[in-house]
Amino acid sequence: MADTDWPGCARSLKGVILDMCGVLYDSGEGDGVAIPGSIEAVKMLKASDLQLRFCTNETQAARETFVAKLQRLGFDILVSEVFSPAPAAAAVLKERGLRPHLLVYDGLLPEFDSVDQSNPNCVVIGDAAEKFTYQNLNEAFRVLTDLEKPLLFSLGQGRYYKETDGLKLDVGAYMKALEYACDLKAEVVGKPSPTFFQSVLNDMGLQPHEVLMIGDDLVNDVGGAQRCGMRGVQVRTGKYRPGDETHPAVTADATVDSLARAVDALLRQRQQTP
Amino acid sequence: MADTDWPGCARSLKGVILDMCGVLYDSGEGDGVAIPGSIEAVKMLKASDLQLRFCTNETQAARETFVAKLQRLGFDILVSEVFSPAPAAAAVLKERGLRPHLLVYDGLLPEFDSVDQSNPNCVVIGDAAEKFTYQNLNEAFRVLTDLEKPLLFSLGQGRYYKETDGLKLDVGAYMKALEYACDLKAEVVGKPSPTFFQSVLNDMGLQPHEVLMIGDDLVNDVGGAQRCGMRGVQVRTGKYRPGDETHPAVTADATVDSLARAVDALLRQRQQTP
Repeated sequence: MADTDWPGCARSLKGVILDMCGVLYDSGEGDGVAIPGSIEAVKMLKASDLQLRFCTNETQAARETFVAKLQRLGFDILVSEVFSPAPAAAAVLKERGLRPHLLVYDGLLPEFDSVDQSNPNCVVIGDAAEKFTYQNLNEAFRVLTDLEKPLLFSLGQGRYYKETDGLKLDVGAYMKALEYACDLKAEVVGKPSPTFFQSVLNDMGLQPHEVLMIGDDLVNDVGGAQRCGMRGVQVRTGKYRPGDETHPAVTADATVDSLARAVDALLRQRQQTP
Repeated sequence: MADTDWPGCARSLKGVILDMCGVLYDSGEGDGVAIPGSIEAVKMLKASDLQLRFCTNETQAARETFVAKLQRLGFDILVSEVFSPAPAAAAVLKERGLRPHLLVYDGLLPEFDSVDQSNPNCVVIGDAAEKFTYQNLNEAFRVLTDLEKPLLFSLGQGRYYKETDGLKLDVGAYMKALEYACDLKAEVVGKPSPTFFQSVLNDMGLQPHEVLMIGDDLVNDVGGAQRCGMRGVQVRTGKYRPGDETHPAVTADATVDSLARAVDALLRQRQQTP
């Protein structure tokens, strides 16, 4: 499919969900860098008649801190427009009376301030990055093996992501390590969990077929959205790799060079007379 | 099955293979500690008419260093009696013209001295312990993703093991992390690979049904040996956990409290008249 040959749905769309890291910016030292054209693309979507939400598996920072970083990079984004796994997980833990042992990045800890963490009866892992030490993983493993019913929550299940200094293993790899060691299956909070996508659709008040997801992660963004009934478009930025375009299980509704190209094509097609 | 109620095969056996860590000794600070009765049990087996070999997935030290440690603990063991994954892997790499990027414990590096490590075209991971850092795992991951045909060798696939200060994640957990991140299946060198067990049987010149494997790891020692046609007995030391006795997929031919109890029962039964 050519870059601008949309799947004939552009005019019927009422909302767009954007993944953030690898679509809006590349993370890395400091705030990272905005991907060329993305700041303008977000502006154009906001100026359009489409609803816009952001849906990220970012778990290195509390939502407020994370959004402030994007605002510093020049993005017009509000905290209320951003959906991320940690607040969703905190809600689940409280609802089920669970007390987590947290293996998450320090910056994410504030999201769990209101959750009782004494005498843990489950483990929550996020993208802990440098905190994924041998010692910390052994500790999380021991908490799980000491539980009568080991319960592991993973904030997302990404395989890897790209920072300015190269590809990094994401939380999903460490989730698999603990799943194997403990012989259990983790509960994933975040993309591609249907519950998580549905919470964004609910907030928009839209049906899945009215919404397009744009992401750099073929399986979690595109495939996850498609399984919920949304359209899914992949951008060739961030963690995109050429092999994605021949993936055996997931085929994007379109693959485009960047968010800028995607938004340009989308809005142009919506302006054409039917 | 009662501790000493052997599966009626004791008299037909011609050889015994012993796992080492968790059967002979518990690892930990320094040389670790011999498990009570194990030193004598090895002596008794050596004094019997049974052939004896040791088969370990130990990958923290070169075989010479590892055997020297066991000798210091008081065990009568020779290097030539010990089968471990690293020498087996080095042979495979040379045979197939592969140049490894090694993520292994420093002490294991001498086993690969004779293997070309320039311009790597595969990754080999062992139980790297503290060397399983976020940085080192990302590096191994990047080597794999840069290869046209990513190839990962894992020295064993253990889930965890016990040291004197608690349970630790074993190489299998990190193998699963890299398998997931790279969407590949590792080649396992070591237990429970049938090729590996067969190399021990070849050295003994025995048929599988003539040999008994004794280990603390239900899946890799007992299950692995059974899949090769050997008998498999689990000891309740090392990484043994009570849940092993109701494992859905693997049932030991017998479960005994310790190697000492196993050898005592085995030799006693062999002395009884038929």
